Amino acid sequence: MPDSHPPQEDPTVSRGPAALPHAAAPAREELLGGLGAYVDASRPEFERRLAELVGIPGVSADPAHAGDLARTAEHAATLLRDAGLSARIVPTAGYPVVVGEHLAGTGLPTVTIYNHLDVQPADPDEWHTEPFRLAIAGDRYAGRGSTDDKGPALTALQAAQFAVGRGWPVNIRFVWETEEEIGSPNFEAFVRAELPRLATDVVLVSDSIWIAADRPAIDYGLRGLVTFEVTVTTGRNDTHSGLTGGPARNPLAELAGIIAECVDPVTGRVLIPGFADAVAPVTDDELDGFVASGFDVDTFMAAHGLTSLRTTDTREVVRRIMAEPTFEVHGLVGGYTGPGVKTVVPPRATAKLSARLVPHQDPHAVFALVRDFITARHPDAVLELEAAMPPYLGPRTGPYAEAAADAVEYAFGRRPAFVREGGSIGAVLTMNEHLGAPVILTGLSLPSHGYHAPNEHYDWTQTAGGIRMFAHYLAHLTSLTA
Amino acid sequence: MPDSHPPQEDPTVSRGPAALPHAAAPAREELLGGLGAYVDASRPEFERRLAELVGIPGVSADPAHAGDLARTAEHAATLLRDAGLSARIVPTAGYPVVVGEHLAGTGLPTVTIYNHLDVQPADPDEWHTEPFRLAIAGDRYAGRGSTDDKGPALTALQAAQFAVGRGWPVNIRFVWETEEEIGSPNFEAFVRAELPRLATDVVLVSDSIWIAADRPAIDYGLRGLVTFEVTVTTGRNDTHSGLTGGPARNPLAELAGIIAECVDPVTGRVLIPGFADAVAPVTDDELDGFVASGFDVDTFMAAHGLTSLRTTDTREVVRRIMAEPTFEVHGLVGGYTGPGVKTVVPPRATAKLSARLVPHQDPHAVFALVRDFITARHPDAVLELEAAMPPYLGPRTGPYAEAAADAVEYAFGRRPAFVREGGSIGAVLTMNEHLGAPVILTGLSLPSHGYHAPNEHYDWTQTAGGIRMFAHYLAHLTSLTA
Repeated sequence: MPDSHPPQEDPTVSRGPAALPHAAAPAREELLGGLGAYVDASRPEFERRLAELVGIPGVSADPAHAGDLARTAEHAATLLRDAGLSARIVPTAGYPVVVGEHLAGTGLPTVTIYNHLDVQPADPDEWHTEPFRLAIAGDRYAGRGSTDDKGPALTALQAAQFAVGRGWPVNIRFVWETEEEIGSPNFEAFVRAELPRLATDVVLVSDSIWIAADRPAIDYGLRGLVTFEVTVTTGRNDTHSGLTGGPARNPLAELAGIIAECVDPVTGRVLIPGFADAVAPVTDDELDGFVASGFDVDTFMAAHGLTSLRTTDTREVVRRIMAEPTFEVHGLVGGYTGPGVKTVVPPRATAKLSARLVPHQDPHAVFALVRDFITARHPDAVLELEAAMPPYLGPRTGPYAEAAADAVEYAFGRRPAFVREGGSIGAVLTMNEHLGAPVILTGLSLPSHGYHAPNEHYDWTQTAGGIRMFAHYLAHLTSLTA
Repeated sequence: MPDSHPPQEDPTVSRGPAALPHAAAPAREELLGGLGAYVDASRPEFERRLAELVGIPGVSADPAHAGDLARTAEHAATLLRDAGLSARIVPTAGYPVVVGEHLAGTGLPTVTIYNHLDVQPADPDEWHTEPFRLAIAGDRYAGRGSTDDKGPALTALQAAQFAVGRGWPVNIRFVWETEEEIGSPNFEAFVRAELPRLATDVVLVSDSIWIAADRPAIDYGLRGLVTFEVTVTTGRNDTHSGLTGGPARNPLAELAGIIAECVDPVTGRVLIPGFADAVAPVTDDELDGFVASGFDVDTFMAAHGLTSLRTTDTREVVRRIMAEPTFEVHGLVGGYTGPGVKTVVPPRATAKLSARLVPHQDPHAVFALVRDFITARHPDAVLELEAAMPPYLGPRTGPYAEAAADAVEYAFGRRPAFVREGGSIGAVLTMNEHLGAPVILTGLSLPSHGYHAPNEHYDWTQTAGGIRMFAHYLAHLTSLTA
């Protein structure tokens, strides 16, 4: 699709307060003059910055690394200032959020770029290099957090530095969280508290993965999630099935029956009447985009270690991941789980369950539906809500999506596929809801980069493309008046 | 029922090689002359013997007690010899079996009395007295193993000592196992190896519990048991339900579905066609006996800590425990079982299952039926047989049962209820099968005695009655010619 494609808004999707007119191409091209040379020249600086951040092991899941997360935030603030932005470290009840800003002027468009700087744990035994020392081999940057999400954060920073240095009329704000890997427990409180200082026209989130290395992808939707437990209690202690089996209720068997009433586990079809009533049907056009992402069933199976699937039809597989709700069993607690079989009848059993949700399912409404369905049949089953996250549907067409697609095409030479993410990202929902701005997921990571895996890496190709992508998006924004 | 009740054989039940004619009452009464005084005089000797045995902590489940089990066997042999019998300690691949014998003569009837001398572990913190020091308080004998099963063993020994001392024409053999609490892993090998030296007309097993304290009970049947695991494997590692949920199979959900196809967990009804085909229907007469045992639903629930049942109708509860097969779930392994809900889809899950069986179900046939039923629907489900024990049905009527009932009535002043045991006792099956003799379960323990519980105890009332019961049975046997 050419840059001059007329902007169209999709009235069904969420969006920010202001509609953006399409940017004037000549002005943007002018601003981007010299970007190629800047990108090339950026490389040593980018690599130094990435090495410095990777060298601080900010593992948010491990309290022993609390000091490293404080150091991460401090060093991130230094890097923002080096790039010509202001920086402040905003404390939370957990680890802080680093906010960097370049305020070019009131009335100018504002973009917020979200990344996170905390990382997954790393077991050195599984790594070929030291996880917390950046190993540069040609274009490849190996180290924990290199692609998730320090590399993309610094890629965007290089682009912002280009814009700030040239005095572009656009307000740029970075929001760098340090608790993403532990579920962003304090991010909503941060956003609420800082709301007056976080006004923005659009949010870019760069923490997602292309489906295939040769096809850029933009996520415009996320599944929601509701997690809950169902408990059946029939006694006070283990009994011996020889002594009680027959008249005694078996809470594990009853939970198995409850699960089988809720879902056909072979097909995955949810059997609860009304469960899918609020599901917005996915269009053929959307499905075409999912498939065009380069999704490959064999690659998917190999990447996740799956040896069989409910279906191997590509279109059906992507439809299920990106646009269908689920009902999953994650664990059953109760009874005997050691070696062999011990004939106990437990007094209580709990099933750990969840449902992934798609637009426009409401997690609380779904929980109430599931609870009522189960307790109508099993009055003494006790359901407890654990966590609820609504699904997210951002723009797939319209000016925000077009601007991102144009930037991606400019940077990587190919228009992106518009896909949805099967998982849930709390920060996206929080920002969309509280900032009232559309969130565009312009990820830069590749499937081969090893998110959460040993020997995680990032690379210069994605960095260089990413700088161009963000610069193009910023240039586009300069043509707008907020 | 009077002693003179004409003996009748039930042609449907198992029995020994020879039918016993009914004993001539006068001879038996003569033999039993002086028994009352003997019982009274026995008390100090019995209490000393019980204290000695309880003082040796032969916990078979704990390898640290291996020496105590050797000491238990040696001291048991000493006690047998003190009582006028020969004794030998037969080694096995595990802990030994002690065999005591009084051989009055070839051609005379032979009775084998089975007990076990190993005990359950005991946590001193849960006891009011030291578990391995007999605490005598009035008629009450507290100590680990006092009622399970050292007390009943020594009760029978006191009776045998009376018979041996008076030269009764009956062969008496004691078989005292020391691995019963760990499932009798070497008992069948012992019986096979010793078969030529174990010929017997009848076996008495005194290791069971009356249903109510005021009503003696004789177990004439045991449920069988088949335990097995079902495993579904769909991948090589945990995956994240956000990334894979939908197309990915969920092995825990599939197992839940499999379980729900096998059993209606609310009613307990097994749904596998043919599962109950071999079940011998229980007669109203048998059910009358079960109910007459003094079984009380509230007492049952309180004793086992059950807060609700599938049914609270007394006759239906006893029918289910004593004469109905089950399909039970004991545990599901796989997935996440920590706090909260973690949205993993496990690569594999295993259900630990069992079926209690009733006459004339065959455990191997039932396993094959279940396996075929499940794999026809779920071809990649893998079933593994863990253990198989057939049900046992001994005589409820006929001379052996009558003789035992007469002995119980003589001893305790009330005819026993004939009931079945819901559990499985491997040694009973082994002896019935290999010795070709009927096994009568003449237990002496009361529900209040605390089998396997802290503050386990036995008492003098059951001891005195038990000595009379065994003496009466031995006297009865003297009137027979094998």
